[in-house]
Amino acid sequence: MEPSGGDQRSRRVGIRDVAERAGVGISTVSRVLAGRTNVRPELRERVIAAAGELGYQPDVLAQSLRRGKTRSVGFIADDLSNHLIADIATGAESILRAHGYSLLVMNSELDPELDAENIAVLRSRRVDALMMCPVEEAHAATVEALTSLEIPLCIVEGDQPATVPASYVLSDHRDGIRRAVRHLVSLGHRRIVLLTGPDRYRSARERAAGLADVAAADPSLALERVAIELSTEDGERTASALLARPAPPTAFVVGGARLLVGVLRALETAGREPGKDVAIVTADAHPIASVFRPPLATVMRDPAAVGRAAAEILLRHIADPAAPPETIVLGTSYVPRASASPAPGR
Amino acid sequence: MEPSGGDQRSRRVGIRDVAERAGVGISTVSRVLAGRTNVRPELRERVIAAAGELGYQPDVLAQSLRRGKTRSVGFIADDLSNHLIADIATGAESILRAHGYSLLVMNSELDPELDAENIAVLRSRRVDALMMCPVEEAHAATVEALTSLEIPLCIVEGDQPATVPASYVLSDHRDGIRRAVRHLVSLGHRRIVLLTGPDRYRSARERAAGLADVAAADPSLALERVAIELSTEDGERTASALLARPAPPTAFVVGGARLLVGVLRALETAGREPGKDVAIVTADAHPIASVFRPPLATVMRDPAAVGRAAAEILLRHIADPAAPPETIVLGTSYVPRASASPAPGR
Repeated sequence: MEPSGGDQRSRRVGIRDVAERAGVGISTVSRVLAGRTNVRPELRERVIAAAGELGYQPDVLAQSLRRGKTRSVGFIADDLSNHLIADIATGAESILRAHGYSLLVMNSELDPELDAENIAVLRSRRVDALMMCPVEEAHAATVEALTSLEIPLCIVEGDQPATVPASYVLSDHRDGIRRAVRHLVSLGHRRIVLLTGPDRYRSARERAAGLADVAAADPSLALERVAIELSTEDGERTASALLARPAPPTAFVVGGARLLVGVLRALETAGREPGKDVAIVTADAHPIASVFRPPLATVMRDPAAVGRAAAEILLRHIADPAAPPETIVLGTSYVPRASASPAPGR
Repeated sequence: MEPSGGDQRSRRVGIRDVAERAGVGISTVSRVLAGRTNVRPELRERVIAAAGELGYQPDVLAQSLRRGKTRSVGFIADDLSNHLIADIATGAESILRAHGYSLLVMNSELDPELDAENIAVLRSRRVDALMMCPVEEAHAATVEALTSLEIPLCIVEGDQPATVPASYVLSDHRDGIRRAVRHLVSLGHRRIVLLTGPDRYRSARERAAGLADVAAADPSLALERVAIELSTEDGERTASALLARPAPPTAFVVGGARLLVGVLRALETAGREPGKDVAIVTADAHPIASVFRPPLATVMRDPAAVGRAAAEILLRHIADPAAPPETIVLGTSYVPRASASPAPGR
């Protein structure tokens, strides 16, 4: 940004200029800008006024290196094009920006090999802390890279082995699913299918646990969890097969945006109307949920709040590296809408 | 990341270690790692092998400062939670990562004041180039900050005054709207409304121009552009008022995700069925478009391609600061679907 030439207009305003304008010594300016308190208030005010008038911008990078800090936090996203992940980044960035930190975003494009590579890149850039939504929970190269990390680490919406020294920010999927299934049961449904991803995803395990909670309370119910890969095709194929049973489920709780699209297609093909012939609940929120006809009952998490909480944890750990790891579990909510229709014949 | 203490395990493998393992001088290692060609091939291979065995990671930040480069590109998003913007970031990050660059993301949360502040932050972090989707087209503080920028700048999906020395990557909204309106005309529609944001958005102006192109070709058509603020409420209120006319439009082309939700609500309230009583085309793609019943005809751009093109322009300009600014306009496409239904009585 700063050419070495003598172009007057682009010359950076330095600490020397501020000192001259304020009529104080350079060391005074330096103490004020470093936030030290051993400066008389009237001098401090003159320095701040002079810095403002001159448009002084501290050389953050040079400062950072002197302090061994870059005032940057890395975020490794498993899939940045996923709107939940983009919302997590948005929430984290707002907190970091307010504290003078910047967010360095890397994307692993759902490729577990890229996770470890991205960790190496961010280490070499000396980020002060790392926030990560790993593609896999126990990928050997990722676990190794995370275990040897010397900076604060916060895993969002995922799990890692206990050997990884991390804080966690998680959503309480289990509670949201429990509420949704109980609502369906109250509407007369007895054959309910929960579609989720495989057990390697924490969200899938937690959702299954929510279903199991309700099943344990009333063993007469036919509550079934079906774990499949998170693709539209798998969702459509599986829902079609379930609908073709002699006694098909009367309600679906669908954990995954792609699965939801697949299930809606399967219903269309089978000529079964969502919210009339079959009840539908989506987890998580999907952009279609509120404008779909009928509007879709939804289990919601708050991804921006997840990002904010992770950024706050990391700032605390940057300030106090000895602070113990934290785990924050944020609540989910259940919004009943018309697609959570009563069981047929009710 | 690197504690100053003598902990053996976390000591950074240095260029000295690589030289020792390879049995060559430090200057040889340095030349190899800098990609110079004045090194004998067998020495080069020994250095590369030694660096690999030791897990040597170059100190990117120290290197950067020596070279006056940080190998980072800033991206100022007007609204990172917008999935189009997240897709632009995703596309840009993939290209930058492949070239050893990182993406520093700042979010202006649709607040024009934050644009100029974020530019200042990224300047102080000495990013090598800046990519930006500005909140406003001619905000004084933003224009001033951009005009005095000494690094390559690429504006994506927006306009800035000619005084701003920038490259541009844009989508051809005009062409997509033209195709959509022509399709509606071919289906017998004569009263068509294009709903867009205000003229301060390039996308809105370009879409209006697309409608005007069709109107100019056939003045007997009642083609009307209605510019409103981009909120769900404005979309709903305006669509309701249009539907209450004695001769209401028979087709809506809706430019904006929030407007679309508002229009669909207005149709619901008015008891008019989309794709039957009223034809609907959405611009841009909306996650609901393909699963809505009926599926929504859509004008599509490719935001990831926008991000990739911007990153490629910036890498070219980092390599050659004297290269002239470029403008790339990427095509849009029109996907007719059932919601683009024939005019009533046809």
